[in-house]
Amino acid sequence: MDAAQKPAAVPPEQVFDWLDAEAERRADAGLTRRLRPRPATSTELDLAGNDYLGLARDKRVAGAAAAAALRWGAGSTGSRLVTGSTELHAELEHELARFCGFQAALVFSSGFTANLGAVTALSGKDSAIVTDKYIHASLIEGCRLSRAGIAAIGHNDVAAIKHALATRRTQRALVVTDSVFSVDGDLAPLPELSAACREHGAALLVDDAHGFGVLGDGGRGAVHAAGLAGEPDVVMTVTLSKSLGAQGGAVLGSRRVIRHLVETSRSFIFDTGLAPASAAAALAALGVLKSEPELPGKVLANATRLAEQLTDAGFRASRPDAAVVSVQAPSPEDAVTWAARCAENGVRVGCFRPPSVPDGISRLRLTARADLSESDVDTAVKVVSASAPPRAATS
Amino acid sequence: MDAAQKPAAVPPEQVFDWLDAEAERRADAGLTRRLRPRPATSTELDLAGNDYLGLARDKRVAGAAAAAALRWGAGSTGSRLVTGSTELHAELEHELARFCGFQAALVFSSGFTANLGAVTALSGKDSAIVTDKYIHASLIEGCRLSRAGIAAIGHNDVAAIKHALATRRTQRALVVTDSVFSVDGDLAPLPELSAACREHGAALLVDDAHGFGVLGDGGRGAVHAAGLAGEPDVVMTVTLSKSLGAQGGAVLGSRRVIRHLVETSRSFIFDTGLAPASAAAALAALGVLKSEPELPGKVLANATRLAEQLTDAGFRASRPDAAVVSVQAPSPEDAVTWAARCAENGVRVGCFRPPSVPDGISRLRLTARADLSESDVDTAVKVVSASAPPRAATS
Repeated sequence: MDAAQKPAAVPPEQVFDWLDAEAERRADAGLTRRLRPRPATSTELDLAGNDYLGLARDKRVAGAAAAAALRWGAGSTGSRLVTGSTELHAELEHELARFCGFQAALVFSSGFTANLGAVTALSGKDSAIVTDKYIHASLIEGCRLSRAGIAAIGHNDVAAIKHALATRRTQRALVVTDSVFSVDGDLAPLPELSAACREHGAALLVDDAHGFGVLGDGGRGAVHAAGLAGEPDVVMTVTLSKSLGAQGGAVLGSRRVIRHLVETSRSFIFDTGLAPASAAAALAALGVLKSEPELPGKVLANATRLAEQLTDAGFRASRPDAAVVSVQAPSPEDAVTWAARCAENGVRVGCFRPPSVPDGISRLRLTARADLSESDVDTAVKVVSASAPPRAATS
Repeated sequence: MDAAQKPAAVPPEQVFDWLDAEAERRADAGLTRRLRPRPATSTELDLAGNDYLGLARDKRVAGAAAAAALRWGAGSTGSRLVTGSTELHAELEHELARFCGFQAALVFSSGFTANLGAVTALSGKDSAIVTDKYIHASLIEGCRLSRAGIAAIGHNDVAAIKHALATRRTQRALVVTDSVFSVDGDLAPLPELSAACREHGAALLVDDAHGFGVLGDGGRGAVHAAGLAGEPDVVMTVTLSKSLGAQGGAVLGSRRVIRHLVETSRSFIFDTGLAPASAAAALAALGVLKSEPELPGKVLANATRLAEQLTDAGFRASRPDAAVVSVQAPSPEDAVTWAARCAENGVRVGCFRPPSVPDGISRLRLTARADLSESDVDTAVKVVSASAPPRAATS
């Protein structure tokens, strides 16, 4: 629009007409999304959620949430620096840090806000950020908010990350990556990334949302498995809503990193503290994980079995490094129909389409849980196969 | 740093040395912040939290949270479009929309992410955003993420907002404001802002976090009080963590606005759904508010009493339009000492300093609740007065 031209007058009921035009474009591209509220109990086999250890409905975990709501109240009543920090939050932070091998931790109301807070507070306009292109949307939003110079590098290309670090224009630099990428469930080369950071004086921030509780000694996560837990130049984020079956997120790092986040992170300072029930549930789930260190191994075994059987059935299934198994679909429309047929046949699977898939390829996304039986896996593969669109199986 | 110059090699333990330098700068300016975890029960008089209706610990609300954790599990297990939408979320959305007078509502995991989602999804690079300078940090982050052209206007300057709308370079425009500004508790001129939007073909987005539950018929909020509820060009956000005593946030608007948010809002799509306990608590609190429509009036009466007595005692207290009463402090250091002395004397008040105060003036921030007694208010004023630094009282 020309600057001299006055914007056209629009009646109030037409101000949002552009939303309908965008909705039509999405419909034409097969990218319509709709909410499907689920009931409290269901006979459906859930291979779509992120409750990897099956703890969301564990009585010890749900019971701790219930008890905390009654004891502490339904909400935290304020931001963490005003009235929103309870002794429960402090205990959870202490236990998370100790379990994962870091000096300190800070709990946020979600993994999304934890990632926003960590990326923005640990970079800034005097900093360069070098990221893998496939990082989670919340990390990307953090990068966009950071005012740092951003280099988004091709997936898992360590040489290009090194080059970006070597040619940056600022002294400070932060490399940002997922440990387990959320769409295909593949691993980042954390030891190589850490070496690249050290060669070039950069810090490393790892989102271990899909590694924590599944990988590493007793589920301590991918950062711990890579020998990087507690390193002074490494910061890790986790969610409390996947392996721990609750809600929330956390940042783990050195004491000075955590202090810095408390004092400067806008998504921490200006957000209401996590509800006591969620903090208590995460704490209880961490206790279960400590007392049952065999749980993470069960997730991996089930993911492997699921992927192998799907591959044997002719599908393009990812080779799982953690709980996530993805299966490529011929088109977004096929993915929707496929997932809907699975649901009709009693198996809930995820359906990932652009823009949730960085490479534009639509997929079914299946997640393994520790509490799946062999027959659950067999059933899942049978239903996925029977529901497949004609072009899905490659062999 | 010169582009040709290689960044200096830094040992891993020195990569975050810059954080210590920043911490020292904050300490020198009196801007150190520390978490003070609170116990489950306390004899302290709380004038710092945002639990305006006193519902966070109400048995009906906390009980609903506990029951929901046991029935639905501790977490929602996934993002809202995958497994994170329960019938509880749908019921809460339906009831929120109906109560506030909008066609539809969408629940987010926090007010912070609701504001991010609403601002970004309803603007974009082809849009202009015109905001009041004093809007909440989460709205500012939304503006920064939006890629829209931003005009941040002096506080409550409707003429300047009109000018910015008239001279914008895009057809689409969104005016963004708080209804009740969070620091001083003053009101935005919503009818005038809506008229300005209509004159210039813009949409209006109002964050009613501090108005919802306190203002308007039965606590329906400031948007409802201004006669703008359900208008096709108006969108409203609320938190579930203030008047409703729970956790979470929501966006309310027309059906097409909400559908658009479901399909495009990144802070909705890529975040885990709100925990069932928090959704149930918010729903129960809404029920209490409906059955006790006198609660909001009590909040206002207590805020007015508090402000009047503080003004009578010689302080620069704001005139409350809702629950928030602010009292100016001579300096950030004074504000910290003052708030600490209040706490020692059994009254918890908020302490707001830069960057949480847009005008740079440090304050005590007191919040009235429906369940304060006259003697609570008298005690608060006595303690605040006795704890004041020498230069705080003006008369």
